[in-house]
Amino acid sequence: MQQLPTTTLVVTGEAIRQYAELTQDFNPLHLDSAFAATTRMGSVIAHGTMSISLILQSLAKAFGAEAVVNVDLDIRFIKPVRVDETLTAGGERESGDARRYAVWVRGVEGEDRLVGVATLGPAALG
Amino acid sequence: MQQLPTTTLVVTGEAIRQYAELTQDFNPLHLDSAFAATTRMGSVIAHGTMSISLILQSLAKAFGAEAVVNVDLDIRFIKPVRVDETLTAGGERESGDARRYAVWVRGVEGEDRLVGVATLGPAALG
Repeated sequence: MQQLPTTTLVVTGEAIRQYAELTQDFNPLHLDSAFAATTRMGSVIAHGTMSISLILQSLAKAFGAEAVVNVDLDIRFIKPVRVDETLTAGGERESGDARRYAVWVRGVEGEDRLVGVATLGPAALG
Repeated sequence: MQQLPTTTLVVTGEAIRQYAELTQDFNPLHLDSAFAATTRMGSVIAHGTMSISLILQSLAKAFGAEAVVNVDLDIRFIKPVRVDETLTAGGERESGDARRYAVWVRGVEGEDRLVGVATLGPAALG
């Protein structure tokens, strides 16, 4: 497969708060507007693993449920995600290796939020 | 800092179901026991990004809230996480580079669930 199917998610403030509870990740950068205003971020941002989740969803759409089990991820966060942003994840196969995909999560204007490489485990391609 | 502070989380079945809702990741490997029984996994497993979240929490404990913004993650999933498992994340500084940490998430018996390298962004060390 040359292109991964895309996956989209709207990251609401309520989702960020629930995500913090579930993962017990109460980093104030995700939850405390007053704190976030004192940082380089300026306002609260979403947990980065929410974006990584979209990559795994695109891989599962492409290669089946078990493709997420043994994948290697090499991820670089490019630009933080703000409340109520719509994210889209996807990826393209790298030339020369059927198991390697250049993956990305982008905002509505197409700007990268994270980029990376996902390498499928040996079983994923059957 | 030589050792990252550890982070612990108990992954309940209810947490996995709520995590699926929040991320819209309804991969049946996480939710459908009958389906999971037909796979190499044998039973449902947690979303891998829940484990990655623990790594980011340990980095924030060590280097402050903003350390998670520009970190690079190179992650390999070793062994899936089952319902009601207790996970612990941590890491050790790699020799020769103050920004690189060998990171891990382990189960109660110390076996690796994921391993990787986290490289802090230029601002994280101040």
